[in-house]
Amino acid sequence: MRFQPALDKIPVYEAGKPIELVVREYGISPDKVIKLASNENPYGVSPKVENAIREAVYKMPLYPDDSYRNLKDALASAHKVDAKNVIQGNGSDQIFDFATRSVLDPGDKILQNGKTFSMYSIYAGQCGAETISVDSVIHDLDLFLDSYKKNSPKIIFICTPCNPIGDALNKDDLFSFLEKISPETMVVVDAAYMEFGKTRDPRKEVQASELISKFPNALYTNTFSKIYGLGGMRIGYGIGNEELIQAFYKLRPPFNVSQLSQLAATIALEDRAFVEEYLKANLKELLRYEAFAKTKGLPYFESYTNFITIELDKARLTSTSLFETLLKEGIILRNLKSYGLNAIRITIGRPEQNDIVLDRLEKLL
Amino acid sequence: MRFQPALDKIPVYEAGKPIELVVREYGISPDKVIKLASNENPYGVSPKVENAIREAVYKMPLYPDDSYRNLKDALASAHKVDAKNVIQGNGSDQIFDFATRSVLDPGDKILQNGKTFSMYSIYAGQCGAETISVDSVIHDLDLFLDSYKKNSPKIIFICTPCNPIGDALNKDDLFSFLEKISPETMVVVDAAYMEFGKTRDPRKEVQASELISKFPNALYTNTFSKIYGLGGMRIGYGIGNEELIQAFYKLRPPFNVSQLSQLAATIALEDRAFVEEYLKANLKELLRYEAFAKTKGLPYFESYTNFITIELDKARLTSTSLFETLLKEGIILRNLKSYGLNAIRITIGRPEQNDIVLDRLEKLL
Repeated sequence: MRFQPALDKIPVYEAGKPIELVVREYGISPDKVIKLASNENPYGVSPKVENAIREAVYKMPLYPDDSYRNLKDALASAHKVDAKNVIQGNGSDQIFDFATRSVLDPGDKILQNGKTFSMYSIYAGQCGAETISVDSVIHDLDLFLDSYKKNSPKIIFICTPCNPIGDALNKDDLFSFLEKISPETMVVVDAAYMEFGKTRDPRKEVQASELISKFPNALYTNTFSKIYGLGGMRIGYGIGNEELIQAFYKLRPPFNVSQLSQLAATIALEDRAFVEEYLKANLKELLRYEAFAKTKGLPYFESYTNFITIELDKARLTSTSLFETLLKEGIILRNLKSYGLNAIRITIGRPEQNDIVLDRLEKLL
Repeated sequence: MRFQPALDKIPVYEAGKPIELVVREYGISPDKVIKLASNENPYGVSPKVENAIREAVYKMPLYPDDSYRNLKDALASAHKVDAKNVIQGNGSDQIFDFATRSVLDPGDKILQNGKTFSMYSIYAGQCGAETISVDSVIHDLDLFLDSYKKNSPKIIFICTPCNPIGDALNKDDLFSFLEKISPETMVVVDAAYMEFGKTRDPRKEVQASELISKFPNALYTNTFSKIYGLGGMRIGYGIGNEELIQAFYKLRPPFNVSQLSQLAATIALEDRAFVEEYLKANLKELLRYEAFAKTKGLPYFESYTNFITIELDKARLTSTSLFETLLKEGIILRNLKSYGLNAIRITIGRPEQNDIVLDRLEKLL
């Protein structure tokens, strides 16, 4: 059988190692494993969500309300937009998929940062499109603009704050950049880590309502996987002008978010106290890692997220070797070798998890 | 912004009306609503699954094990194939999406039954492909063969038992047909209702292992939404030869099935008694509807599923009018008008639900 030639070129996404793997491979008991590899919420999920899901198990047999009205109304209200500007996704991943498939033809181009979330390029590749990566580790909008002019990409992906580096753009800089982009070019602003960013520095805050009213070609995406602690439930969303959202709806499979997931997300939005407490604790613990890196003289990226990326001195230790040493002890971090960096990305854990990790790093680095 | 021209032609999937809608529109209390519109399991889900999910809510923050090893091993064992032959989907819908996107170019064709599950055509349309529908209500493989020869489709979709009609092919007839199809043409056998079919007549049973070993171009798909009562959890799967499954993996988004969904599916597979009891009860109650239709002189399709499709005498009543009358009373059935039929599709409910529905139909028809 002849498959789409585009498939040959698609790289495979490398996910953070799951706890199950460490249990299987090294016989470590699941409650002993410290997983700080996938930027999940180390405090879990709001107890209100847990209770709501326990009570809603009887709903599992029923297809979701395919209008997703409750969830979309809640999101619209949280972001001060109309429900018509919102589309829910099976993770924000699915929104990237809608974005690429709605405009890209084989041979088209997308533009992204040198180091960024790897799925943009994978979805673009599925459409037969080419990925142009700006030659920068931290987002450099001047370089973006040069490359935009040279390559005429159909989509620009901006990840702010950026995974896996941790940097974030000032809103004013982003908006100045957007003013120079043709309204025919879609600009995706992946705001998965936005609340962490604005907690550290309010200048980083990009609000969906302001973004889409000023730039009809912009798409704001966000996720319930990070601050809301629902990574396992697969819920993200996109906010954009109505024409864009309607195009995405043409590509949306029915029931694209599960019954329990949409409920979990709707309840999670209501428990703002849970989120605020996490944001505060995260920043406090993040600063411990930065202090550690400073003391050790290790280069790190100032982080506006719930993780920190630390570069290693290659002569002494590769990220792969550090990653593997810790994996065998049941500590799962993220090796950034596949991003072309001799660096390790550590999700900021709970204080007691960070104590253990910092203690081990102190000895190993 | 210029969107893919293929998007213009995509019809919108019409889902069964959710309970939430009836509650909103007609102020009927949710526990008074009888929803027999989406072929969900009216007995719900296995209590073992409910318990497992209640206990697993703490897993919501964690991304699933992206290898889906537990679920795939369980499916491989249930279907006597290798885990390499299995891919999980966010509903079997997602498997159809993988199938179409892996081979279809704009201008290509797919072949399907005259009346069939509407998503095949929607996914094909997203690829810019054309849908050729055989001019038959019940699958007619001779007509399929004629059309196949004339149109050279890249994919043939066979839905057996078939939604929304209820008919099923004998396995021997299907296999004779498959022998006449080029190995370059993918044949998708959508077996979502297979267990209902084989319960009524063992000749209808198509086993995944036999299908894919005899026909490397065949893809078997199934779902947890029907017999396992997990419609709201969005889990389906495809079974095919390794080359096919590997191509699909290139298109699979990471974490495509939620943490709780994969757990629910894995546990559901273990509770065979729950399924067997449902299959027995379903057939018994289905025969009540067939007897009713016979008595009334209403044409119906002998059903190998958990629903029955009854045609209405247009002169007396349209399906739209019957549908709307009952909707206002809190009884949700499926109007098949959009399929070009003056017919109503009724999911076989629990005995007490069927009592009420049959009583109303007795008076209205």
